[in-house]
This record gives sequence, C-alpha cells and structure tokens, in this order.
Amino acid sequence: MLQISFCGKLGAGLISPFCDKLSLMLQSKLFTKTLREAPKDEEALNAKLLLRAGFVDKLMAGVYTFLPLGLRVLNKIETVIREEMNAIGGQEVLMPALQPKENWEATGRWNSFEALYKTTSRFGGEYALGPTHEEIIVPLGKKFIFSYKDLPFAAYQIQTKFRDEKRPKGGLLRGREFKMKDLYSFHTDPEDLLKYYAKALAAYKKIFKRLGLKALVVEASGGTFSKYSHEFQVLSPGGEDLIYVCSKCDFAKNKEIVDEAFVRAAEAGKGSCPNCGGKVTAENGIEVGNIFQLNTKYSDPFALKYKDEKGEEKIVYMGCYGIGVSRLLGTIAEIYNDEKGLVWPKPVAPFAVHLLELNGASAKKIYAELTKAGIEVLYDDRKISAGAKLNDSDLLGIPYRIIVSPKTGARVEFKERSKKTAKLVNPKQLVKLVRP
Amino acid sequence: MLQISFCGKLGAGLISPFCDKLSLMLQSKLFTKTLREAPKDEEALNAKLLLRAGFVDKLMAGVYTFLPLGLRVLNKIETVIREEMNAIGGQEVLMPALQPKENWEATGRWNSFEALYKTTSRFGGEYALGPTHEEIIVPLGKKFIFSYKDLPFAAYQIQTKFRDEKRPKGGLLRGREFKMKDLYSFHTDPEDLLKYYAKALAAYKKIFKRLGLKALVVEASGGTFSKYSHEFQVLSPGGEDLIYVCSKCDFAKNKEIVDEAFVRAAEAGKGSCPNCGGKVTAENGIEVGNIFQLNTKYSDPFALKYKDEKGEEKIVYMGCYGIGVSRLLGTIAEIYNDEKGLVWPKPVAPFAVHLLELNGASAKKIYAELTKAGIEVLYDDRKISAGAKLNDSDLLGIPYRIIVSPKTGARVEFKERSKKTAKLVNPKQLVKLVRP
Repeated sequence: MLQISFCGKLGAGLISPFCDKLSLMLQSKLFTKTLREAPKDEEALNAKLLLRAGFVDKLMAGVYTFLPLGLRVLNKIETVIREEMNAIGGQEVLMPALQPKENWEATGRWNSFEALYKTTSRFGGEYALGPTHEEIIVPLGKKFIFSYKDLPFAAYQIQTKFRDEKRPKGGLLRGREFKMKDLYSFHTDPEDLLKYYAKALAAYKKIFKRLGLKALVVEASGGTFSKYSHEFQVLSPGGEDLIYVCSKCDFAKNKEIVDEAFVRAAEAGKGSCPNCGGKVTAENGIEVGNIFQLNTKYSDPFALKYKDEKGEEKIVYMGCYGIGVSRLLGTIAEIYNDEKGLVWPKPVAPFAVHLLELNGASAKKIYAELTKAGIEVLYDDRKISAGAKLNDSDLLGIPYRIIVSPKTGARVEFKERSKKTAKLVNPKQLVKLVRP
Repeated sequence: MLQISFCGKLGAGLISPFCDKLSLMLQSKLFTKTLREAPKDEEALNAKLLLRAGFVDKLMAGVYTFLPLGLRVLNKIETVIREEMNAIGGQEVLMPALQPKENWEATGRWNSFEALYKTTSRFGGEYALGPTHEEIIVPLGKKFIFSYKDLPFAAYQIQTKFRDEKRPKGGLLRGREFKMKDLYSFHTDPEDLLKYYAKALAAYKKIFKRLGLKALVVEASGGTFSKYSHEFQVLSPGGEDLIYVCSKCDFAKNKEIVDEAFVRAAEAGKGSCPNCGGKVTAENGIEVGNIFQLNTKYSDPFALKYKDEKGEEKIVYMGCYGIGVSRLLGTIAEIYNDEKGLVWPKPVAPFAVHLLELNGASAKKIYAELTKAGIEVLYDDRKISAGAKLNDSDLLGIPYRIIVSPKTGARVEFKERSKKTAKLVNPKQLVKLVRP
C-alpha cells in the first residue's frame, strides 16, 4: 500500500530509481553502465551482449551476477514459467542446495555424477551442492504419499543449481551456477505419468512461445536420466548441440541418438527424413528444456510406495521436467540482437519504453503520463551527449524508444528497436502506441 | 493474460490447486499435510509449529525445504522487504553463491571466517559458498565507480546464504542454508554514509512493523564487521541473544558489549539504565536484522576508489545492511502462535481466508465469490471429518475461518483465528468482513 502511494507521486518517484508496482526507473540513478567494448575473455555472443549492456557481470567462468536490468528480464521469464506451471497444477516449493551425502549414495550418484560439487562441514559431514533435486524430492514425497488418494501431484521450484561443468564457455548458456525450474510429478502408474507428461510437454511449448522462442521438440537420449525423454531445442549458431531437422515435417533428433550411417548421409547432404523423406540438415541447437519419464528410477532406491485401492503396496511412478531459466536469458540474447546491440521481445523486455530527453529538453511530463498509465519506462534523464544516449539505447534493446528533443517541437520521435524507421507523433498518442 | 482468464473460471480453477493472480487453492490438491505431532528431534518452537502445519520440511539440521504454504509466507515477507528497499533507492541484483578464493584472500577472510563452506572444482580452483557478499559486491562496484558522480548508490539482493553454524538448533532462526536480504551502500565520505545509514535504519523499522514485529534497535559489537552498528532484536524466549532492556526509555544493549559490573548488577535485579535510571532487565532476543557502517573496511583491500571534484583519488565509504528473511519466517512463527497452532498476522498469512465445508455442505459458491473479489482463499474441499478439518485449520493459522455447514442454514460461521468467539453471518457480508 505504501508502495502504491509512493509510486503515485512523481516527485517521490524521482527520488528513487525503482518502483516495483509501476516499474519506474531513472537512468541517472542506475548504478550500472554500458561498457565501451565486451570483455576480451568472453567468447559467447549472448554474454558479450549482456555484459556490454550491463545486464550481467561475470564473476568467473560460468558464474554471473544478475545486474538490475538483467534481473528484471530474469524475473519476467520466471513469471511466464510460473504461470504455466501453476496452470498444470504445479505446486511451488523451494528445496535446499546443501544436500546430505547419504541421499546421493542412495541413488549411486555421489560418485557417478561427475559435475557434482561437494563440501564438508567443519563439524563433520559431507554435502553435495544440488545439481538437480531427485535426491531431495523423493524422500520428501515419502513423507506425504501413503495411499493412491495422495496421487497424482506435481511440485516445482525455481532455484539455483551448481554443476562443475568442463568448459563453461557459452556465457549464460552453460553455467557452473545457474537458475533452473525443475518440476517433479508423482503417479500411481505409467499411464497416469504419460498423461501428465503430455500436459507438461504442451505447457513447455506455451512457455517458449510466450518467450518469443521457436523451440523444436526433439527426441533425445536422456543422458543419465531415462530413454523416455524429449528435449526442447532452439536453433541457433551459438548452440552446443547438433540436431538433425527435417525441412518438411516436424522430425528432429539429437545427434546423440542417431546412427552413424544417418550422420554420414546427412553430412554428405544426402540425409532424408525417416518420416516423410524430406531433406534433413544438421543445425546447432540450444537445449532450453527437457522432460523425462523417470518411471521408477528414483522411487526404487528410496522405496517410494503407496497403497492401492486393495491395500497393496505399489511403487510410485515419476516424471521430471527441467527448464534452464538463466540459460533462457542467454538464449533470448543470442537470438534477439543486431549489430547495434540487444533487441528484446516485448514479453521479457526489462522495460517497455526507453524515454530519452536530448539537448536540454525535458521528458518529465511524458514520463509521468506513461508511468501513470502503468507502462514500464526507463527514463534517460542523464546530462550526457545525444550520441551517447542513442548508442546506449541501441545496446540496451528496449522495444520502444521515445525521444523528446527541442528539434521536434511539440511532437516526439517514436521508434521500435526492431525497426529501421522512426516517426514523429503527438505525445497524446504514446500510451496507445505502446500498450500491448 | 492466460492466467487471468484461467483464474476467472471456477471450473478451470478447480482443476489446478494454485492460481497466482487470484491465489486460489484447493486443499484436496495440496500435496502437504499436517503432521500428528512435531518430529522429536526438533527443539525449536518455530520449527515444531512450521513442521507440524506442513509449512517447511527439515532436510537436516539447519537446512529446510519451504513447502507451498511456507513459501507463500516467505514471498510475502520478501515483498514487504523489497518495497522498503526500493523506497530508499535500493537497486536489486542477484549475486552468485559460488565465489572465488582470491576474493576471500584479499580481505583475509578465507582463513578467518570460521563458518565458511568451501568447495573445489574437479578442474582445479577453490571456491567459497557465500555467507555474505562484501567480497563480491566491492569488486563489482569497482567496475562502475569512477567519479564522485557515480556516488552514492545502494544495491541489494534477496539470496541464499551458506554458513557452517556450530549448533543449528534454532529451527528457522539459525540455518546453515538460509535466505537473506543484504543491501550495500557506497558513498564519497562518512557523512554521506551516515545520512544513508539513518535512512536504512528508518526503513528497517518500517519493515519489521509491517511484518507485525516489535523490533528493538540495539547497540551491538558488530562482531567481525565494525563498531558502528545496530541490531534489530525481537524479544522472545526462543531468542539466542541476551539483551539488556530499560523498562522506561528505549535503552537496549546486547550483553556482548556491556561491562561485567553492569551484568552482575542487572542479574542481581539491580541494573539501572545509564540513560534514565529506569530498571534494566535481561531479555532473550532474536536478531532479525543488523546494519553496519563498514566505512573503508572492505573498500581498502580492493582499493575501491573514486575521483573527487578536483580529480583526486579517494577511498569509497560503505555501509551494509542485513535482514534474515527465512529467520523472519521463524521469528513470526515463534511469536504468533497459541496452544492450538500458528496464528499468522494478516500481512504475511499464506491466505486471508480458510474456507471449510463440513458435513456434506458445499462452499463452492462462497469460494467463487471471495476469489472473484480478489481475496486469497484456501478452500478445504476434502471429504474428511469436521474435527480433522477444524484441527488442521487451527494448526495452519490462517487469519479468517469461514465454515459452511448444514447446521447453520443460510448463514455461515465466521471466526478470526486470533479470537475465541465465532459468529454467524450472512454470506453477503463476507467480502466486507475479510477485506483489509
């Protein structure tokens, strides 16, 4: 309540750079700045763009700080994911990163999970830093699952994971510390699991579509998990995976599960789709999500059972469903950019409008009107050159740019970041032009 | 948008247990359940209450999972903190937990910070698991602070911390993994720091008040930090700290910084306040927040400097300001309870209303009306005994309980969790009664 009244007054709003309810921000107060050039030790396009625009900072290889603008994008990605997880009955929880060795020994992964970070207590005791949470949620499920009446259900979290990756060179695409959404579902039998698996698959499609990404549903090996799995791959030269994609139908397979003859044929330009005969080409892909029918792989070691209608003990069937949340930030940056900088899709942009006042003009009134209308505005009120402001605006990539300048008189310049041309408009039109 | 239309329809709402926009929840779908008794290995009152009501699960000593109801409370606490941090110009970031050894060596804390968890990479390299973030934010500040024009600013995060605590017996009050809000401020000189310090102190008072807590501002030693510090202590028998409090004025001092003669006098019932002569007694307190004038303690080792108006290099002054976010969840539970269970204050309650249908009645219509009015309702639609539902309702501690039962005809029973008596009301009155 306090926040609302605070945001309502422009005077007060100008004191503080942020206001969550209406999302105001003065660029003069923002502590981050754009960089003249991307750091030389950074290879990945997504990281170069995000670092230069001040969305993230690199602490070390594979480990990044989310700065105010980057955190806003991350939060928007999370909101979309949360809404779709809730819509398929996901119940949000938050599980610990610090995990007992015993749980990892129970599944045999204490020694076999190569990228597992470990730590010890000075009072004794060894712990894993969670790279995934089957070892935690299955014992948790045991505390609440007794009968068939307690099934099915699904629980998810958006949480920080740790994996000691080999060569974290992909910027936000492959982190040693990263944010992930992991959903786990619990069922009485494989049929019920399959039904939910289809629901989750549909929810994933919605999520990536809402985020502006074209994600292919790809058959995959499932790595350490299960053979009943699908990956969601966004085609991009920055991707580490190789995907065979049919130009006609929706056939798409990860190279990992394709036989050698097929690979040779495709690489010779002679690959043909096993479904429709169409031409198959190899494309780089970023794996933004994956879904697995775990079946009883993790319920077995913990003896996660329930009593059926006849009172007989049966094993619980499980599915798990991951999305790389911070990887999505990197993926969107990797796809949405041009030679001048980032070009955010509207649903995840840190702000809807970048409002620039140039050459002594004041955009205060327009700032007040837009924010009053509930529009998210980053207001560049800095006393610097027009060139520097325009350059920064392109780097930041906010969807709409509005320029107030003495040159254009009573009208203002309006331009979409994704388009080449600007137009002069009456300030009264702005709310209509900007509102989705 | 999808979420709104989804929530608008009760039919659809009934499929899913959750709906973020309107916060609907069906108790029949909630995977957690109340426990018949608190786990025997748990000593702390807050943890007993939260575990029994299914708000948290204990993974190991000092490490808890936040279950759906507990996470809702945690999120509400975080929202209050965020609003007040934003109101004093705090810019939200998210820093990593995995931190390079070199940063901790620079401040000399790699060896001296006893509760520091450490881990190694299989490819070489040692890391700290962040128990606090001075070692990260100071080098970050170095990248954006060049001139006096870049100061002052303040950045904060709500993030998961790790500390290898000696005896984590306090439930949520002292965790080995816990959520913390840490704000850091950067200034040109001690005077500017002091001004902001006063602002932060005022913001802290607001936060604790909004959360329903009476927090004393206590002079403290500052431990490893600085002598210019204050603690915020909530008096409670469950607290680990000992605070000398004057019965007349606002004098309050942590035992740590009081001399022995004073301690002896106070313990003999003869303590008198150095300010007003009033009687001083020793009380247990929970430290829910602390603020420090770091001055140049951490800017020195990293040479965090700026150029003043004359172009001269000067050292940056800093403050840091912590709040134990998950500790607050424990503190509120420790304070707000009775012999039957939790009694949440309204601003942080997981839901505003607990709606129970008993003995074959249906509360579906009231559920639809309340949720349509934007009220957060947990709807107990389970087919279990009235006694079990009433018992659960007391354990959960949601502020308003509404009972629909054949016994009360067209009227419904309305009761506040914090009060002894119920009354019968016309269902049309409910929205008015419940709305804040």
